[in-house]
Amino acid sequence: MMNSMEWSKWEKDIARKAFKIAYDREQRAILENVREMISEVSDLKELWRLQEYLTEKRNEMDEKYDYRYSVLHFVFARLICEGWLKQEDLEGLAEEKLDEIRRISIFSKGS
Amino acid sequence: MMNSMEWSKWEKDIARKAFKIAYDREQRAILENVREMISEVSDLKELWRLQEYLTEKRNEMDEKYDYRYSVLHFVFARLICEGWLKQEDLEGLAEEKLDEIRRISIFSKGS
Repeated sequence: MMNSMEWSKWEKDIARKAFKIAYDREQRAILENVREMISEVSDLKELWRLQEYLTEKRNEMDEKYDYRYSVLHFVFARLICEGWLKQEDLEGLAEEKLDEIRRISIFSKGS
Repeated sequence: MMNSMEWSKWEKDIARKAFKIAYDREQRAILENVREMISEVSDLKELWRLQEYLTEKRNEMDEKYDYRYSVLHFVFARLICEGWLKQEDLEGLAEEKLDEIRRISIFSKGS
């Protein structure tokens, strides 16, 4: 039996798809946000607030979407916590992986 | 007679108005640019290009619009070079100031 850190070919496919689903959802939300923000901007002071938002989001996205199998449990737990991923999106992963992801996400919610 | 580095109350009024005119023009152009850019953005990679543009513009604007009388000749010369200010916007300044601003702007164009 595989331990929870090993990913079968089958699980890798599911993981990759789930990762992309979350990324696409968050991407869409950011783009919508930016379009709304820009529609309300009337001067540079307000525009620089958009610049700060974009810089922050860029750093956040770069840091968050880290597709390394060694950290993927944590990435998925965070994405679930933040609402970008649903548990159903991970269906097909080994039960012990799902348990661990759930455990981390519950722990994260409490912090 | 005042030397070209001294600014009379009258000249300060003209300078302040010209400074604002240039700033408003450039502000409008940046806002238009950003709206056009955002309308063409369809993913985060493209959005980060907008983030880079905004960061660059923010630094540029902070550095460029420096309202200190000791550097104002250079600021106006640069604004003329870049097309944000017209010589007519400075009408009313002492002739020697205008000469100096013209001299610097011609020199800048050549560089």
